[in-house]
Amino acid sequence: MVVVMQAGASEEQIQNVIDHLVSLGFDIHRSTGVSQTVLGAVGVRPDFDPRDIELLTGVREVVRITQPYKLASRAFRPEGTIVKLPRGVCIGGAEVMVAAGPCAVESAEQINLIAARVARAGARLLRGGAFKPRSSPYSFQGLGEQGLRLLRAAGERYNLVVVSEVMDPSQIVSMLPYVDVLQVGARNMQNYHLLRALGVVDKPVLLKRGMSATIEEWLLSAEYVMSGGNYNVVLCERGIRTFETSTRNTLDIAAIPVIKKLSHLPILADPSHGTGRRDKVAPMARAAVAAGADGLLLEVHNDPEHALSDGAQSLHFEQFEQLMAELRMIAPAVGRSIAA
Amino acid sequence: MVVVMQAGASEEQIQNVIDHLVSLGFDIHRSTGVSQTVLGAVGVRPDFDPRDIELLTGVREVVRITQPYKLASRAFRPEGTIVKLPRGVCIGGAEVMVAAGPCAVESAEQINLIAARVARAGARLLRGGAFKPRSSPYSFQGLGEQGLRLLRAAGERYNLVVVSEVMDPSQIVSMLPYVDVLQVGARNMQNYHLLRALGVVDKPVLLKRGMSATIEEWLLSAEYVMSGGNYNVVLCERGIRTFETSTRNTLDIAAIPVIKKLSHLPILADPSHGTGRRDKVAPMARAAVAAGADGLLLEVHNDPEHALSDGAQSLHFEQFEQLMAELRMIAPAVGRSIAA
Amino acid sequence: MVVVMQAGASEEQIQNVIDHLVSLGFDIHRSTGVSQTVLGAVGVRPDFDPRDIELLTGVREVVRITQPYKLASRAFRPEGTIVKLPRGVCIGGAEVMVAAGPCAVESAEQINLIAARVARAGARLLRGGAFKPRSSPYSFQGLGEQGLRLLRAAGERYNLVVVSEVMDPSQIVSMLPYVDVLQVGARNMQNYHLLRALGVVDKPVLLKRGMSATIEEWLLSAEYVMSGGNYNVVLCERGIRTFETSTRNTLDIAAIPVIKKLSHLPILADPSHGTGRRDKVAPMARAAVAAGADGLLLEVHNDPEHALSDGAQSLHFEQFEQLMAELRMIAPAVGRSIAA
Amino acid sequence: MVVVMQAGASEEQIQNVIDHLVSLGFDIHRSTGVSQTVLGAVGVRPDFDPRDIELLTGVREVVRITQPYKLASRAFRPEGTIVKLPRGVCIGGAEVMVAAGPCAVESAEQINLIAARVARAGARLLRGGAFKPRSSPYSFQGLGEQGLRLLRAAGERYNLVVVSEVMDPSQIVSMLPYVDVLQVGARNMQNYHLLRALGVVDKPVLLKRGMSATIEEWLLSAEYVMSGGNYNVVLCERGIRTFETSTRNTLDIAAIPVIKKLSHLPILADPSHGTGRRDKVAPMARAAVAAGADGLLLEVHNDPEHALSDGAQSLHFEQFEQLMAELRMIAPAVGRSIAA
Repeated sequence: MVVVMQAGASEEQIQNVIDHLVSLGFDIHRSTGVSQTVLGAVGVRPDFDPRDIELLTGVREVVRITQPYKLASRAFRPEGTIVKLPRGVCIGGAEVMVAAGPCAVESAEQINLIAARVARAGARLLRGGAFKPRSSPYSFQGLGEQGLRLLRAAGERYNLVVVSEVMDPSQIVSMLPYVDVLQVGARNMQNYHLLRALGVVDKPVLLKRGMSATIEEWLLSAEYVMSGGNYNVVLCERGIRTFETSTRNTLDIAAIPVIKKLSHLPILADPSHGTGRRDKVAPMARAAVAAGADGLLLEVHNDPEHALSDGAQSLHFEQFEQLMAELRMIAPAVGRSIAA
Repeated sequence: MVVVMQAGASEEQIQNVIDHLVSLGFDIHRSTGVSQTVLGAVGVRPDFDPRDIELLTGVREVVRITQPYKLASRAFRPEGTIVKLPRGVCIGGAEVMVAAGPCAVESAEQINLIAARVARAGARLLRGGAFKPRSSPYSFQGLGEQGLRLLRAAGERYNLVVVSEVMDPSQIVSMLPYVDVLQVGARNMQNYHLLRALGVVDKPVLLKRGMSATIEEWLLSAEYVMSGGNYNVVLCERGIRTFETSTRNTLDIAAIPVIKKLSHLPILADPSHGTGRRDKVAPMARAAVAAGADGLLLEVHNDPEHALSDGAQSLHFEQFEQLMAELRMIAPAVGRSIAA
Repeated sequence: MVVVMQAGASEEQIQNVIDHLVSLGFDIHRSTGVSQTVLGAVGVRPDFDPRDIELLTGVREVVRITQPYKLASRAFRPEGTIVKLPRGVCIGGAEVMVAAGPCAVESAEQINLIAARVARAGARLLRGGAFKPRSSPYSFQGLGEQGLRLLRAAGERYNLVVVSEVMDPSQIVSMLPYVDVLQVGARNMQNYHLLRALGVVDKPVLLKRGMSATIEEWLLSAEYVMSGGNYNVVLCERGIRTFETSTRNTLDIAAIPVIKKLSHLPILADPSHGTGRRDKVAPMARAAVAAGADGLLLEVHNDPEHALSDGAQSLHFEQFEQLMAELRMIAPAVGRSIAA
Repeated sequence: MVVVMQAGASEEQIQNVIDHLVSLGFDIHRSTGVSQTVLGAVGVRPDFDPRDIELLTGVREVVRITQPYKLASRAFRPEGTIVKLPRGVCIGGAEVMVAAGPCAVESAEQINLIAARVARAGARLLRGGAFKPRSSPYSFQGLGEQGLRLLRAAGERYNLVVVSEVMDPSQIVSMLPYVDVLQVGARNMQNYHLLRALGVVDKPVLLKRGMSATIEEWLLSAEYVMSGGNYNVVLCERGIRTFETSTRNTLDIAAIPVIKKLSHLPILADPSHGTGRRDKVAPMARAAVAAGADGLLLEVHNDPEHALSDGAQSLHFEQFEQLMAELRMIAPAVGRSIAA
């Protein structure tokens, strides 16, 4: 931590800051310049709040040096992490992985139809919601465990890894027999009860970025899970909230190269939630792969116009197939491939 | 719902939209202008997604007319709601109510010291965290049920209504004997499991605005609670995330008059979280009361420099006392008073 | 315009709104529903402010139907605009056009070195600043007209179209002999004096999006230029301001497909300003092309570490050459090509 | 400047950074810790770009220590600045100053009516636009110099200091005979041509915050004006752009205490532009005064429903008078007064 004193801070003020830091267990290195004094403080505890020093008289600024996350940082595994899933699926390797499926599982027929088509087009994972966190209390809330059973069966039949969202720690146990990856939605990115519970589970976690989360906060949430022992975390950028209203969210494509530098964890992009409109999904999916994403999370539906949720952002089968063809042309530009 | 067709949309496109709407159960009124056709659709279901129509060919824009919330809207109770609490405390009436206390309950001595002083200065509610949702897994996580017990005892001794945060549905039952108001934190504003559980509880809920929640989404979360039968919801503005970094959040003071127009629910402001720094709390507390807030949620600590969490945004006793004196001068300007 | 009355608005309130609208010259169509009345108002003047109606008693919401821009809208030229420049360069056609060069022209040697290399690598336009709008009054402010002369000479020698930024109407006349495209920077997107002056110039305008401009405001600025008679406007997305601080701005890649739907004008992306860091430029340049951009604006420098401005976001020659190779692999996926 | 090396940076990387800094003229102090090396660099030039160092291999973060503004910083005049205007009006002293008037001067009758009423109610400054920067090219653009003449005459008659917006350096000379304060609008906050021109003018400048400007950028714009020799700068907060759409902008009330700490310059608030709706102006005006603003900029109109611009955010006379009465009750709570 570096403490910058105001120009003109008195010797008494400086000494007061030093005493305070020493009482908190820091080692202090003092640099006295012509117009300003700067204090280096070594030995920060993880729960130290730099604002406590910022408020002392004569202090201009406090700069934290140590990153608040360790396990999630690139330095922890400079070579990068490859998350291994069943059916030979790896996220973070040379192959760009596509997870596709409906927003919500609606029926056996629906999920089988969709699974068949997305598998044929090259998806390796099947996504589908069973517990739906809807913003209106009057909307369809999902099929629950029955939805998971249908999802699992479709995954088995079409050789797809199964991903579904967990909303509450109480659901974890009942989900384990059905899903291969437990997804944490954007609204739960800082639900620490849930993150802690997932830290002791033996299944990979797909952690979506919160709508107003900084990249640092997102990595700190990953750290929560990892600090429990579960290192198989896959990040997923899904758009942040900005003043622009022509898309539902602003998909922060730059988060992909930023994460690649700061962390060893793989990162997917979700252009369905990131734009909220079917006609913007393909351009943004292409953009994400071109920027270096390790995979995509895409909503695809057999009949989007009559989907029970988020049909507006679900691709038709033909759109999905065309997109996969386009992605296969783009992937080699970044040294990647996509399953045929 | 109003559907605006593009200038130059063909008769076939218009008819297609009409057919689609009719199949969904809407009544349609068509206005054909010189350059544009506009369709009025009556009978929207609450779970209808306007984007489904927006994506049809020839459509320029879809405008939802019905507000997605009912119970939380001003129209539901034009005269406004007064939430009645024990000890004769009412939120939403002529008196501006102040809830004060530490971020986290740390010990019997600490909470008693604080309760005594804030009560004497005019606070009517005591706030304090027992379960702390910290963004770092390595930080102090609260005293748990023991903290609640200490909080309750201090409330009894100093005649203060007790407020504490609930983080998970599983905590509700154990909290009920100790707290008078269940607080939902910003990160849980869209935790629908929690909201649903609180809808069937017989205690008022203090619902903080999410860091990136629009006012409409906030009211929809209130609707979640109310739709379960619990109409005693108090809103609390605590700052939104913007590009400005000189304060932790941007306290959206304008949300106070906006809520007063859109909803009948009372609204508090939390300038401690809203600014993140002690020296900005008093100006923003005064601003909130001047703008018409029904009360304040303030962090106060006997020794902020050594608080176990959020000391940087906690007021010293003397600062709190001076603030209360200032607020007593401001309240009459908006036809309100503050307990002496 | 559609005026939605509050549920329970009185007949007197409704009549008052109708009278007000009629007095402003609107034709009114009234729909009386079970719980709500909706008024359609036809004949809006371009300078009408819908908030005037929103404030009348009993009104819940006013919805503007007519887009505030006409010439910039897709409907004006459904087939799209191709802006024709000298040397056979066209923006908006099948070829993705790359404009490259330094942030600021520093010397004849510098600009010639750069022009030679970027031309060889496939750039068709040369960019370079002569008047530099720096946020600090103590920074390098550009070479002025001498810079333009050097830029032009380098453009001639290496067959490159010349782009440079105009900051003030008073500079236009002196720039005309030297530049082929007049660039309007993000900070001037709503400098209406400048936009009006450019509307009567016979040179294409490259209009950057303001840092906090919505897409609608951006198109309205394009309309300003076009309303003067100059229809050769090229848009350029360069990042918006959000709460995320790990990049200088958030490059809104989705603006590319959004603009393609709303407008007929071509659109470029500027990942140099959009990210502010050299190591993020290539991923975002690839993303922009994959999303359908008509071209790129890129900062390239012979010695970025010693550039007089914005060296941190300038590519080295080798990085630019590799990027061009990658872009040539991506362009065909969107039916485009890039000059070899 | 402090350069934080990555954990595990090699000695060669560290030496490379040191050499680079030395070649740029810095003095270096090196601290080698157990896991990390930190370099202190003294002697930063104002035009140095820290990103240049951030990009060197092995560097984790670069922290600028010196504030980029000097003249605008609190340290330059710790006692605060009082800007003295004609007619005994001072901004920054004990009296809260109110500037009121229409968005645009429309006629002699209009401006006289308004001036008479706002003066009687306690306003000390008269505001009114003559050159209107409208976002639509089809809207009313102001009366120009004739508007200034009418404004001046009304100011003389009712003993009011005159404020009007300058949009372009070319307008300054013609405005000087008419106005006492030159206002720079939000869209021009970074129009450096204009700022530089105002730096050599002998009239105070009212500098509005840009819609997406950080407080640091705002102070840097003030520095631009001051670096030319004109130290009479008054800041004006007028709302920033956020994701919230229920108000036109989010009036950042916390900017008032933040500016008071960082700078010696006085600060006003403009709740008319800050909210965009008449019914939100009074609450926010009260909030601004309660938070410590040195004054207010308010739109008031004799007939807001028929104003030629921004009528929706203009107060009626009676509303203005009631607001002034409320403000007189609030001002003493912050040790201020308002003229009767």
